[in-house]
Amino acid sequence: MDKGDVTALMQGLGAAARAAAAELAFAPPEARRKALEAAADAVWARRAEIVAANALDMDYGRDKGLTAAMLDRLMLDEPRIQGIVAGLRAVAAQKDPVGEVITEWDMPTGLHIRRVRTPIGVVGVIYESRPNVTADAGALCLKSGNAVILRGGSESFHSSTAIHACMVDGLRAAGLPEAAIQLMPTRDRAAVAAMLRAVEFIDVIVPRGGKGLVGLVQAEARVPVFAHLEGICHIYLDRAADAEKARRVVLNAKTRRTGICGAAECLLIHRDLVGGLGAQVVADLVAAGVEVRAGEGLHHLPGVVAAQPDDFGREFLDRIIAAAVVDDVDGAIAHIRRYGSSHTEAILTEDDAAADRFFTRLDSAILMRNASTQFADGGEFGMGAEIGIATGKLHARGPVGAEQLTTFKYLVTGDGAVRS
Amino acid sequence: MDKGDVTALMQGLGAAARAAAAELAFAPPEARRKALEAAADAVWARRAEIVAANALDMDYGRDKGLTAAMLDRLMLDEPRIQGIVAGLRAVAAQKDPVGEVITEWDMPTGLHIRRVRTPIGVVGVIYESRPNVTADAGALCLKSGNAVILRGGSESFHSSTAIHACMVDGLRAAGLPEAAIQLMPTRDRAAVAAMLRAVEFIDVIVPRGGKGLVGLVQAEARVPVFAHLEGICHIYLDRAADAEKARRVVLNAKTRRTGICGAAECLLIHRDLVGGLGAQVVADLVAAGVEVRAGEGLHHLPGVVAAQPDDFGREFLDRIIAAAVVDDVDGAIAHIRRYGSSHTEAILTEDDAAADRFFTRLDSAILMRNASTQFADGGEFGMGAEIGIATGKLHARGPVGAEQLTTFKYLVTGDGAVRS
Repeated sequence: MDKGDVTALMQGLGAAARAAAAELAFAPPEARRKALEAAADAVWARRAEIVAANALDMDYGRDKGLTAAMLDRLMLDEPRIQGIVAGLRAVAAQKDPVGEVITEWDMPTGLHIRRVRTPIGVVGVIYESRPNVTADAGALCLKSGNAVILRGGSESFHSSTAIHACMVDGLRAAGLPEAAIQLMPTRDRAAVAAMLRAVEFIDVIVPRGGKGLVGLVQAEARVPVFAHLEGICHIYLDRAADAEKARRVVLNAKTRRTGICGAAECLLIHRDLVGGLGAQVVADLVAAGVEVRAGEGLHHLPGVVAAQPDDFGREFLDRIIAAAVVDDVDGAIAHIRRYGSSHTEAILTEDDAAADRFFTRLDSAILMRNASTQFADGGEFGMGAEIGIATGKLHARGPVGAEQLTTFKYLVTGDGAVRS
Repeated sequence: MDKGDVTALMQGLGAAARAAAAELAFAPPEARRKALEAAADAVWARRAEIVAANALDMDYGRDKGLTAAMLDRLMLDEPRIQGIVAGLRAVAAQKDPVGEVITEWDMPTGLHIRRVRTPIGVVGVIYESRPNVTADAGALCLKSGNAVILRGGSESFHSSTAIHACMVDGLRAAGLPEAAIQLMPTRDRAAVAAMLRAVEFIDVIVPRGGKGLVGLVQAEARVPVFAHLEGICHIYLDRAADAEKARRVVLNAKTRRTGICGAAECLLIHRDLVGGLGAQVVADLVAAGVEVRAGEGLHHLPGVVAAQPDDFGREFLDRIIAAAVVDDVDGAIAHIRRYGSSHTEAILTEDDAAADRFFTRLDSAILMRNASTQFADGGEFGMGAEIGIATGKLHARGPVGAEQLTTFKYLVTGDGAVRS
């Protein structure tokens, strides 16, 4: 497509999304719920069509030389389609956030002021190979009353198109505007650049994918972005850690799933524990097949390898963890400030003062005590589903669910009140 | 200054602000309160010095050919300094927002999750000629636990420097880092550009000033911005308006102060009222010396002038108002969607259904019923003071006070909880 075509395409999608958003803002919650249930029905009814579309993508992916891991992310079969259906029904069943009175108060002038939750407007979601994001992200945006423009990875184009058709079936069944959920109808990369600059049409962009995609979006976007670049999560073994809890939590934080953003990437050990619990925790990790890249003061531990300087502040997303000795909780805080990514950090301690210091002096989106960093997830926070995890300072931090995809307005009532 | 000097200056201020912000995040509320009280004392004690500095600025302003209105905004005398002192004490007395538990809940996994209010980090404030913003903005940022980098107008340089010295006196008296409130120590305009790009050091920029400044900041900033470009506030006279309330509220909304962003700039009149209450309201405005620029269907009213097309969607900030006839509340909503600036709109009606429609279908930051748009103000909302009014969709909308200058983090506690 030439530049003019892309601009015209973005204008068309953008204007349609704005018009749909204006309608969605006052659509009854029941209509949005019904649209998601109907979309779930459609995905299941049209599963053969979706699998056939996915086969085209898998062929394309194989031709393109995608790795086995990438092909696995792309692949859809009946169990995975069941997962998509269940996800749609779960979001449909969630509490509706739109219209909630967040807070209200009276003023001596006679004004009654309410702060009321409203949709943001139009959300742009840019993702990579997983076609299920078409349903998940579309559902969360609709639940929160937003119109959405989806831009899936080029390798999942046919699968996403087939799933998107089912979402539109749902909208139609509920009498909602079809442009509430739009899919960018081209694989052209110029369309991504157009979305990132579309301040007139898109209120916030959510990138879903690896560091390459997120970094590009953060660098190029003129539209606000909800995202995290990396999840370099730290877990600190304080002097007052309970041995049994600590062993269990560290092992879970590193090994439950290594490829997610909430996986621990660095273990910090209080100096006094190096000869005892610290060594035990490292031994547990080594026994679990984790490569422990150990900093100074830990090289003598069996099975470890010496850390290189760039192993600190690194997101391995693998069975690898960096480990360092710190003098105390302040040393842990200093290390995390230097190397962290403001995502999630945990302290293992029975000492309330140390936990309080850790909670107060760090400003990661999520701080945990005696709990695994792997809990950094919208579902585990009770949000039902998440569109991603954000580490920016403004608006949405931590898991971004339907409620985080809303904003608010003030509704003020008087009885002829004038300002003196 | 050459480009390297500006970069070095911004790096120095930015690093100092980051370090101060890290300390402020856990400074006791009492220290922040004490710093503001001590700053108020210092402003009063050093008032002669401030007036002398202001005299230099006034000379500079006269040489530069500033208008009388601009010189008035710049001028400081003892009563105005009393106002600054009172403002500092009012912010000091406000409720402290930092550390507030916004919400908390338990999960079946044993996790207890708290969402806790925290400072944003570093705020940049860019303002024009009013030197009192140095104290007001500095105080609100400190109250909310943020470090701030202030960049005043070049014409108020000496006044701002003198006031800033008093703010630093306050910080010192309370044992807080002096870099918590920094003033850009140069008039060079390149410093503004450097702030707008300082994503590493500044979390949010608040421009305080006219459309020229705000437009520049919105166009150039790589840092998030809390601002409104214009306050094109509409007031809609519904068929079910109460005559007495309507006359009082419209007059106040237009004439109480015409130069503020909450002043009404366009009156929308229900078609059925043109021969009655609408004509009366227009006559009231004309009698009050307001130039009524009337659209089609209103040209026959005594004393009006015919509106030009660009009078709709225009911020007059003067004794001028546009007026148009609409068919009903939906017509008013359509007009506002087309011409509004998402700031503040009011409906005058006794009809709950019309008010509900107006509240639901518009998404301005502030919507009012039977109340003057001039109430669009942090003080009138009970926020104590405001750093500005925001019309963006994310994070802070409407009046931006100390609470809106905060963000949050999640504090999660378990008892050795691991994710299954």
